[in-house]
Amino acid sequence: MVKLKGFQKLTLTDQALQTWFNVLQLGKPNVVEVSLQEALHLVLAEDLVALEDLPRFDKSAMDGYAVKSADLFGASQSKPVVLQLTQSDQLDAKQANPVWTGNPIPKGADAVVMLEHTQTRGGELEVWSQLTPWANISKVGEDTTKGTVVAKAGTRLNPYHIGLAAALGYIQLKVAQKPKVAILPTGNELAELGTERAPNQIYDSNKVMVSAMCQELGAETVDLGLAKDNTEEIAQKIQRALKTCDAVITTGGTSVGGLDLVPDAVNGLGKPGVIVHGVALRPAMPTAVAMLESKPVLILSGNPVAAIIGFEVFGRPLICRMLGMSQTEPRPIVNATLTKRVTSALGRKTYVRVRVSLKADKLTAEPVSAKGSGSISTMTQSNGYIIVPENREGVSEGETVIVHMFGSLEVA
Amino acid sequence: MVKLKGFQKLTLTDQALQTWFNVLQLGKPNVVEVSLQEALHLVLAEDLVALEDLPRFDKSAMDGYAVKSADLFGASQSKPVVLQLTQSDQLDAKQANPVWTGNPIPKGADAVVMLEHTQTRGGELEVWSQLTPWANISKVGEDTTKGTVVAKAGTRLNPYHIGLAAALGYIQLKVAQKPKVAILPTGNELAELGTERAPNQIYDSNKVMVSAMCQELGAETVDLGLAKDNTEEIAQKIQRALKTCDAVITTGGTSVGGLDLVPDAVNGLGKPGVIVHGVALRPAMPTAVAMLESKPVLILSGNPVAAIIGFEVFGRPLICRMLGMSQTEPRPIVNATLTKRVTSALGRKTYVRVRVSLKADKLTAEPVSAKGSGSISTMTQSNGYIIVPENREGVSEGETVIVHMFGSLEVA
Repeated sequence: MVKLKGFQKLTLTDQALQTWFNVLQLGKPNVVEVSLQEALHLVLAEDLVALEDLPRFDKSAMDGYAVKSADLFGASQSKPVVLQLTQSDQLDAKQANPVWTGNPIPKGADAVVMLEHTQTRGGELEVWSQLTPWANISKVGEDTTKGTVVAKAGTRLNPYHIGLAAALGYIQLKVAQKPKVAILPTGNELAELGTERAPNQIYDSNKVMVSAMCQELGAETVDLGLAKDNTEEIAQKIQRALKTCDAVITTGGTSVGGLDLVPDAVNGLGKPGVIVHGVALRPAMPTAVAMLESKPVLILSGNPVAAIIGFEVFGRPLICRMLGMSQTEPRPIVNATLTKRVTSALGRKTYVRVRVSLKADKLTAEPVSAKGSGSISTMTQSNGYIIVPENREGVSEGETVIVHMFGSLEVA
Repeated sequence: MVKLKGFQKLTLTDQALQTWFNVLQLGKPNVVEVSLQEALHLVLAEDLVALEDLPRFDKSAMDGYAVKSADLFGASQSKPVVLQLTQSDQLDAKQANPVWTGNPIPKGADAVVMLEHTQTRGGELEVWSQLTPWANISKVGEDTTKGTVVAKAGTRLNPYHIGLAAALGYIQLKVAQKPKVAILPTGNELAELGTERAPNQIYDSNKVMVSAMCQELGAETVDLGLAKDNTEEIAQKIQRALKTCDAVITTGGTSVGGLDLVPDAVNGLGKPGVIVHGVALRPAMPTAVAMLESKPVLILSGNPVAAIIGFEVFGRPLICRMLGMSQTEPRPIVNATLTKRVTSALGRKTYVRVRVSLKADKLTAEPVSAKGSGSISTMTQSNGYIIVPENREGVSEGETVIVHMFGSLEVA
């Protein structure tokens, strides 16, 4: 059942992604309505539009007294102006009405004098500062005006978007339905977590890890178990997943020049099957991208680090598009000084793991080297990666590099 | 019921936080065990230690053939070496055993030759490259060795930590129990989301927003409803919350020089009550920090932006400590060029919202100005903030600033 083939042509990384997306022609996500309480980190499916002016009435920005600014002309500590206190919501000349932050401004008032600049004396108020018209007042529509798009479709909702939506009177938001991604690690060497391993087996770490990477972006994941190195078993599981899921991600059973069980299984299931196999990308050369029943299939290496980088390059943009984003959500980036030369192969886009630290206001990026790209501990020892483009052979010590951060900065 | 007081002394921001933490003396968080599938973004309560060497056996890093490297001495395309194919897990001289990536290395073998450098001829294998000993083999313990601390207590788990834990045989992890934080907005002007508002009322946006800010860091939140501007009602709700929750966060009813209903309510409930009230911080001066029944109480401004900054400065460090982190989890930072002068008051730490964009490899930070600090739309229009320290009056256009990012970078 094992098909071997010689070294094949590698496709450039950007071209592989573009070709895949061109074939996929992903549509808009399904829309679901969720309460504001459930909306954190979900992705807006429609523009969020202000339903009314915010604030919807002129309101006080201070604790103090609503006044007519003209009445205070010339007021100072040595020459306080005296106003009549009132509770009426219609202010006449020489009157003052107490207001707390957020209170509507009474009709006739055009400024709020801070509590600290006043003193009450019986029914009267001494004021010792003058004010420009509309001082300390948040005017109608100052925050946003009715009809304004305050967040575009495709925005991932942070707490502040949710706060703004609440202020505007929303109780639910239309968000992209979570895409359902099936995860299938393959390989005779794999044992499920918590089971007995044979002496030549290892625990599968890819399923729970790739699932977490998908969930972090806002996908729901479906556990397909594990598949043996067997084309029929792999094909059956993928086929079953396609019935209920929006995408399938596999690990293992793909190589450049070696074992190609998963690409073979995918190609046996229909057209177009595998679209690109073998990418000029290190680590992650054996990655393949495919489509079956109009759904994306991403075939990652079984090597955990290659699977991570393959997911970063293909899986992350995929899930962002499935959520309706027009661009792949960028990771935070920092500029840092490389502490040690890194090597890379000309013609391959190379992801180099680094550890970024902040010390005396300087950011440095230290390459996290490892003998094998399979060492998953290099991902936990690092907090970001740099991308060395195809036209460069390595990066010199002391160069400023852009680091894409996936972990917290180390502050020394 | 309303107590007014004059302008009070402001405490320096760092000192306020330090004083609060000194009084609080937060202990270690409660420990709970969760499955790897549930562990994403939770915080390790104990060091994660390698239970065994990883890999636990020498394994192939390639698809190819396990060989004795000495047998291949001098092999080349023009002078291939011919080996005998075997399936035995004990390799003798001049033998080769097919292995896939991840397979254990048969005894007696000390290298793996890549498939691409070989050709099978019946039961024989032609090899046309020589190898150094241990070429293409991942050796025992190469990734990590038994007993190594692979992630420290206090680490927030990302997908790669989870993958590494799985590879090491973990099925559950000990993590910090989510602290339970009660949220109580106060103010007569507030109406609950989805209810009828009086003409002088606004929808409360702080409860859902502050809840989301807490949840984002890994806390569980408890909805206490809303409280009117009434010391007794506020006190009753806080008292009830202290019975079941680990911390209380209020908004509104605090000012510098004005309405102090919440600090008064807290002080009425016991000792020490309010520890610091009035911080040299803009916006967020009226923030107060307190302790009741050994539990933290954080009193935020009712102004949404001041509440956000008050939470950033006091709430975020609090929740990180409650989760057992030794330091406050830093936000991603970028260095960017300020596009416009910003002003700040000497003696106040000032948080200035900015929008960071990347254009032609240059990062710029554009101040997001607004008439009032109450404009929550300034938080959704920006993606980070800069901190102007107490000893500076503003920052000039063109200066390089450190931006703390809370949203995605805008890529032009």
